[in-house]
Amino acid sequence: AERVRFILGEEDDSPAPPQLFTELDELLAVDGQEMEWKETARWIKFEEKVEQGGERWSKPHVATLSLHSLFELRTCIEKGSIMLDMEASSLLQLVEMIVDNQIETGLLKSELKDKVTYTLLRKHRHQTKKSNLRSLADIGKTVSSAIFSKCSSALKGHGNGIGVEKLNLLFLPLSLMQLKNKFMKKLPRDAEASNVLVGEVDFLESPFIAFVRLQQAVMLGALTEVPVPTRFLFILLGPKGKAKSYHEIGRAIATLMSDEVFHDIAYKAKDRQDLIAGIDEFLDEVIVLPPGEWDPAIRIEPPKSLPSSDKRKNMYSGGENLQMNGDTPHDGGHGGGGHGDCEELQRTGRFCGGLIKDIKRKAPFFASDFYDALNIQALSAILFIYLATVTNAITFGGLLGDATDNMQGVLESFLGTAVTGAIFCLFAGQPLTILSSTGPVLVFERLLFNFSKDNDFDYLEFRLWIGLWSAFQCLILVATDASFLVKYFTRFTEEGFSSLISFIFIYDAFKKMIKLADHYPINSEFKVDYITHYSCACEPLDPAQPYGNVLFYFLQYNATIDWSSLTTKECLKYGGRLVGNNCDYVPDITLMSFILFFGTYTCSMALKKFKTSRYFPTTARKLISDFAIILSILIFCGIDALVGVDTPKLIVPSEFKPTSPERGWFIPPFGGNPWWVYLAAAIPALLVTILIFMDQQITAVIVNRKEHKLKKGAGYHLDLFWVAILMIVCSFMGLPWYVAATVISIAHIDSLKMETETSAPGEQPKFLGVREQRVTGVIVFILTGVSVFMAPILKFIPMPVLYGVFLYMGVASLNGVQFMDRLKLLLMPLKHQPDFIYLRHVPLRRVHLFTFLQVVCLALLWILKSTVAAIIFPVMILALVAVRKAMDYLFSQHDLSFLDDVIPEKDKKKKEDEKKKKKKK
Amino acid sequence: AERVRFILGEEDDSPAPPQLFTELDELLAVDGQEMEWKETARWIKFEEKVEQGGERWSKPHVATLSLHSLFELRTCIEKGSIMLDMEASSLLQLVEMIVDNQIETGLLKSELKDKVTYTLLRKHRHQTKKSNLRSLADIGKTVSSAIFSKCSSALKGHGNGIGVEKLNLLFLPLSLMQLKNKFMKKLPRDAEASNVLVGEVDFLESPFIAFVRLQQAVMLGALTEVPVPTRFLFILLGPKGKAKSYHEIGRAIATLMSDEVFHDIAYKAKDRQDLIAGIDEFLDEVIVLPPGEWDPAIRIEPPKSLPSSDKRKNMYSGGENLQMNGDTPHDGGHGGGGHGDCEELQRTGRFCGGLIKDIKRKAPFFASDFYDALNIQALSAILFIYLATVTNAITFGGLLGDATDNMQGVLESFLGTAVTGAIFCLFAGQPLTILSSTGPVLVFERLLFNFSKDNDFDYLEFRLWIGLWSAFQCLILVATDASFLVKYFTRFTEEGFSSLISFIFIYDAFKKMIKLADHYPINSEFKVDYITHYSCACEPLDPAQPYGNVLFYFLQYNATIDWSSLTTKECLKYGGRLVGNNCDYVPDITLMSFILFFGTYTCSMALKKFKTSRYFPTTARKLISDFAIILSILIFCGIDALVGVDTPKLIVPSEFKPTSPERGWFIPPFGGNPWWVYLAAAIPALLVTILIFMDQQITAVIVNRKEHKLKKGAGYHLDLFWVAILMIVCSFMGLPWYVAATVISIAHIDSLKMETETSAPGEQPKFLGVREQRVTGVIVFILTGVSVFMAPILKFIPMPVLYGVFLYMGVASLNGVQFMDRLKLLLMPLKHQPDFIYLRHVPLRRVHLFTFLQVVCLALLWILKSTVAAIIFPVMILALVAVRKAMDYLFSQHDLSFLDDVIPEKDKKKKEDEKKKKKKK
Repeated sequence: AERVRFILGEEDDSPAPPQLFTELDELLAVDGQEMEWKETARWIKFEEKVEQGGERWSKPHVATLSLHSLFELRTCIEKGSIMLDMEASSLLQLVEMIVDNQIETGLLKSELKDKVTYTLLRKHRHQTKKSNLRSLADIGKTVSSAIFSKCSSALKGHGNGIGVEKLNLLFLPLSLMQLKNKFMKKLPRDAEASNVLVGEVDFLESPFIAFVRLQQAVMLGALTEVPVPTRFLFILLGPKGKAKSYHEIGRAIATLMSDEVFHDIAYKAKDRQDLIAGIDEFLDEVIVLPPGEWDPAIRIEPPKSLPSSDKRKNMYSGGENLQMNGDTPHDGGHGGGGHGDCEELQRTGRFCGGLIKDIKRKAPFFASDFYDALNIQALSAILFIYLATVTNAITFGGLLGDATDNMQGVLESFLGTAVTGAIFCLFAGQPLTILSSTGPVLVFERLLFNFSKDNDFDYLEFRLWIGLWSAFQCLILVATDASFLVKYFTRFTEEGFSSLISFIFIYDAFKKMIKLADHYPINSEFKVDYITHYSCACEPLDPAQPYGNVLFYFLQYNATIDWSSLTTKECLKYGGRLVGNNCDYVPDITLMSFILFFGTYTCSMALKKFKTSRYFPTTARKLISDFAIILSILIFCGIDALVGVDTPKLIVPSEFKPTSPERGWFIPPFGGNPWWVYLAAAIPALLVTILIFMDQQITAVIVNRKEHKLKKGAGYHLDLFWVAILMIVCSFMGLPWYVAATVISIAHIDSLKMETETSAPGEQPKFLGVREQRVTGVIVFILTGVSVFMAPILKFIPMPVLYGVFLYMGVASLNGVQFMDRLKLLLMPLKHQPDFIYLRHVPLRRVHLFTFLQVVCLALLWILKSTVAAIIFPVMILALVAVRKAMDYLFSQHDLSFLDDVIPEKDKKKKEDEKKKKKKK
Repeated sequence: AERVRFILGEEDDSPAPPQLFTELDELLAVDGQEMEWKETARWIKFEEKVEQGGERWSKPHVATLSLHSLFELRTCIEKGSIMLDMEASSLLQLVEMIVDNQIETGLLKSELKDKVTYTLLRKHRHQTKKSNLRSLADIGKTVSSAIFSKCSSALKGHGNGIGVEKLNLLFLPLSLMQLKNKFMKKLPRDAEASNVLVGEVDFLESPFIAFVRLQQAVMLGALTEVPVPTRFLFILLGPKGKAKSYHEIGRAIATLMSDEVFHDIAYKAKDRQDLIAGIDEFLDEVIVLPPGEWDPAIRIEPPKSLPSSDKRKNMYSGGENLQMNGDTPHDGGHGGGGHGDCEELQRTGRFCGGLIKDIKRKAPFFASDFYDALNIQALSAILFIYLATVTNAITFGGLLGDATDNMQGVLESFLGTAVTGAIFCLFAGQPLTILSSTGPVLVFERLLFNFSKDNDFDYLEFRLWIGLWSAFQCLILVATDASFLVKYFTRFTEEGFSSLISFIFIYDAFKKMIKLADHYPINSEFKVDYITHYSCACEPLDPAQPYGNVLFYFLQYNATIDWSSLTTKECLKYGGRLVGNNCDYVPDITLMSFILFFGTYTCSMALKKFKTSRYFPTTARKLISDFAIILSILIFCGIDALVGVDTPKLIVPSEFKPTSPERGWFIPPFGGNPWWVYLAAAIPALLVTILIFMDQQITAVIVNRKEHKLKKGAGYHLDLFWVAILMIVCSFMGLPWYVAATVISIAHIDSLKMETETSAPGEQPKFLGVREQRVTGVIVFILTGVSVFMAPILKFIPMPVLYGVFLYMGVASLNGVQFMDRLKLLLMPLKHQPDFIYLRHVPLRRVHLFTFLQVVCLALLWILKSTVAAIIFPVMILALVAVRKAMDYLFSQHDLSFLDDVIPEKDKKKKEDEKKKKKKK
């Protein structure tokens, strides 16, 4: 161990050794012909084996070795010739040097020199991915003959004992096969190769073993599958009869070479003892599976995550031993998410300090915020979020129109969404956040409108002043860095809030579908045979007075009304009445709507999951998965069009003017109300401020979670600043107020997630982060604004399809939420529970208690939200923080550190906790 | 290795050593109190660890050890005291003996005796499954005090140095905790325990190590978690500071004790050297994972299948080394299915030899065929298969009535199904087979009826004679053991046939749905607003003659017709016509049908898969999964009833009389046709015979596959005998002919599969076989017969729900078919392909070629089936056998042995093949 420490510690300033590609070639008789070196396995990180029968590469797997072969390898290194830092430019030269060295040291009889050299220079045959490469190989041969003639002439002066003709196929320096090999792109540019050659021959009595490291990596012709220069060469030729054992030794050295620590040692070793120390280190660290509990025939899939090799390397500077059996020391417990230590939330104490810092932090990224968006994924995100935003705008617009007697309606909603969203995404601190109307704002507007009506206030003017006051208060919060309070929002609060919003999404989706079903009732009494009995006709109210009260119609057209030709609406308009047992029923629409609703949801889910299926190449799968929602929408719009049922469609306003004719695009600030109202507006504004602050910042916290690996930093103060500014604009224009929308923002992030594309075979693609940029958001909102002109296209989208998308968004945003995981635990018997880290460390009943408390909180919030008290909803979210604080007394800090984040100042308390524990011991 | 061979080989006649339960207890300070032995892990086969924080058992996992700890253990066994075959009756006695031994051999200073003894006799605390066991423990304490007083008085004479009071909690000989432990049922009755005690103490300077084997296993009080007598005891007490290392050594010895080979050695060892040899053997066989490729914190799930330990044991009688990395030697390749060597298909050469053998084989099982059915699973199978059978009977009955002008109709179909099915299940060789009408029979009947009509033959009489001839021919086939030909049906033929039938099921389900949609067209022009424009009224054909051509009605009731009150059917009957733009459309029904169809299918699939979900206890999951189809049917019948749409329902005949009034229940054999027709009937009968033979035997082969692990044997000859007899009955009664139905039979078997219930934690439940019995079949068919009286209940089941069940059956029977796996391979990129054994040994393009040929064959059969040539369909199945034979020339026997079964006489050829290969080498 000391030696290893010495070897590794030595020159810390030298560059890290390059990645190694290791190839195992074995001496085999091919097609009954002469012996050849045949590639049988290769390693970058994990082993890939050539399936002899299948003529293909196996899946990458963890190389399971036998202890025996490792000890044999150790003996080989002890006894064989170790030649470090040799200089050679060709395989021929190299082989000669090795053979000469063996003869010198008496390991090889000199009469065997020719035979050994001949064997080592045999042709190499590589396993290529495509079976039609055989023809390519043929081309290679003809090309090579030209090269060969040059080489052979160059070699003539080199008076060695080998017939030149035997070298024929060896000198295909970079055959077409090598160059065409797609595998190359899995290797970094500076990769080097280590070649392992093992085989049995009949002329040797004792094994011929050599471990060679070259001073400079050299391209040794067709020795390696890929055109990578060789640095290491391990040769084992032995007497007949132990081929299997040689194979295992070859695998053992190859596995060692692909081990990060031994790889470093091999690069830095000074002598044989260093290498042996390396093997011993490896043996020490090795993980042993009992033979009775594991079948060696099973190929172990590469693990999802690997321990960092640094740990092992650092161990030699005096650390503890690694622990087997999953007792990893606890370093945090939670997967990130604590904000206490995050730089963005430090309180500066200066006026606008946070805001200035935010701007300074985000400004350098402003350019990259645009060119980072150049990816097909952005297109899918735009389409998906656009549809979600439009649907949301329509829904809230409709509700708002309802609540305010059309003082604010769908068109205001569209305009507001477009303007605020675009400006926010363009300038805010976190452009991944999507602004939208939210439930609490809607409730507030409804109450405000009723209050204004009852007290004869001018609603829009009153609202303008509230907006101004609230924006002012928000700006004060910005100036005083109040957003630092966000760090008290732990996982408990965040997940509680976001789960609640998700539930509301899901609930609303179903509610809308049920409303739709009520609106288009099914005639459940209908019998096919009685079709003649169903009818619905328009009749004048009073048959004696056939003109009804539609005299104007009569006067206008100077004709009698043909009652039977009127539509339902006309009939009622002209004072007729609908008679018949079929008037209350609408066929097909409800059922078709449900088909579209569940179909869109199921299809989106299935297509999203398609990424992890086994079918089709990765790129195709990724594309389908990225465009899952758009594809589903298109598919079900198609089905809807095909069936042709008159389902309710998306209708966007097509004219640009305020919904209510009584108002304009600018709200005059004075004149409507008495002067004291302007001041009194500050009181309701306080409520709006809390509401805005909570809604905005909790969503911002969720968006900025550490799990999302955002690199460009957050900007809580800057975000709030823009929300306040936009609030002023909206107030003056009589548009709704906008804050960050949790579910849509999460959906936005999800659709922009990046993963590594190439990695060593068997390595899991890593989550790299989110495509942080401003383009998708800006375009989404520009499109939303332009939608007014896209009405003819958008009118083909049935509403149930969009409700299905809402359902999908609600369910998808619950994914990966620890709270949901814990809820599921309630239904699972002990032995089926997944191996969550907190289950290893916190007793199940504590976990359940924590979950239960969270459920109670959410249930209370849900009830609150459904009553008139909804207006204090955001204040109650603050109560969640208080509940969380109270939990400090119910749970130990140890438990909480696993189930939640630790509240900042509790760090101290935690330490005390630990002290207490130690005392107990 | 020789030593191991000697130890194991010694007394082969002694009974196998009992199973061991191993418990690892560590010396820990609990709650700052005195030291206690705390259970930290246990083994039956796999390791279960106590999660310290979580206060629970971890999932069973493969015990990953460090090599270091194994070597340390080896040193422990080398240096510690090994005491084999000791006699002791209590822990106290045992501990004293060990301590005395150590003092004698100078390993322990005599002044430490008391301290060591005291430590070893500390209280043991076990991890119990339920946290509320604490209260139970309290009860245990009070109970124990009574026991204790007895014990202590008994001990007083025993003048040792330990204060009696300290032994208090040790003498809870069988505490309530132990007895209540549910874990006990995981252990066999004769199980013994091995206890591993490791801990660090401050008074020792060198470790105190002892390995004890008792002469007789003794119950050592509360030492063990479960009330199992202890046979082995390993004690390791060492100086402070290396607790982690002791823990790992404890895990190492515990893992060794649970290893099957070392376990045997431990039972048979004569001295220390034997044990060391055992450890060395274990080390030799150990599987090593490189540290850089695996995270030791990952708990490895127990593998699906384990290598038999016999292999390892046998190795010591001179075998080859196990091979790492998945190169298991090829012993067959296919998962069973070759019939060549199966006893049932041996040709006897004697008259009726096969039949007699079949009867002899099945007779002993006849009684068990009834009581084996006593299981809740049988109920689910009955309901499921009953509904499938009834639906099938109705469908085929309807089609048959159509084809034969109601000479055979739905009622005949019901009666025939019930009678033949019940008799067959009661007496046939393979009662798991379900008889049903099949497609080819239907086609034959249609052609026969038309032929009879054209030639003025009496259809039923002609058919009777064909049936008699065919039955006669079948009986000849039975008498001559012709069923032995079945062994030429390889996997290729079977899977081709069964896939085809499954595809037909799926295709038919969709066809029926589309037909239904055609029958109830949706009005795609319908606009909600124009409801007043839609109508459908009944009008007399000629308004001038208001009575139509329904004079009889007029005369009968002496009244004018109120045309508007007529239903559609009445209107057309009385010569009216339907006028209106709504007459051609039917609302809701089609859409509702599709919802029910896809809903039933999806729900069945989801519930069936529920067995492998994590939620709810195993029994609940299994119940839901077993009743998946019935539950789905009930759910969607409920939804249908709730929505109330007039979907087409299942209608069974409710009166017991022939469909056609022109025929009775007995067909007279003479009188209808000229005499020569009776003889000529033999020619079409030949076709029927081939048809029956192929249909029956291929299904029988599929049912009898080795994969199903049937224990009661098959009865091909007996099956065919009964089919022939029933054919005679049916012919005389004018009922359809019945043969084995592939898909329903597979569904029958799937619903009766059994798995092991209890096994060591972590071991996979094994597929045990199928509940082979006659009861389910018999009841299904009795119910089918009784269905005529159940019409009022059955009429609530909508047809689309049953079509959904058909779709499910079609898809489910494709599951696990190798042909489908290979089809899926076509869509998978190389690296995602699962690790099928044939992919390791057969080049992918050969696999694809094989699949391609199979697809071509099936496509041809499909086309054939859709034309009039359908009648020679069964003959073409025979052609499949020929194609398979031809493949022998296209594929090597090596490839075929992996992709298919080898045709019997090709065994010879295969050997030649191998010889050829060897020659090449």
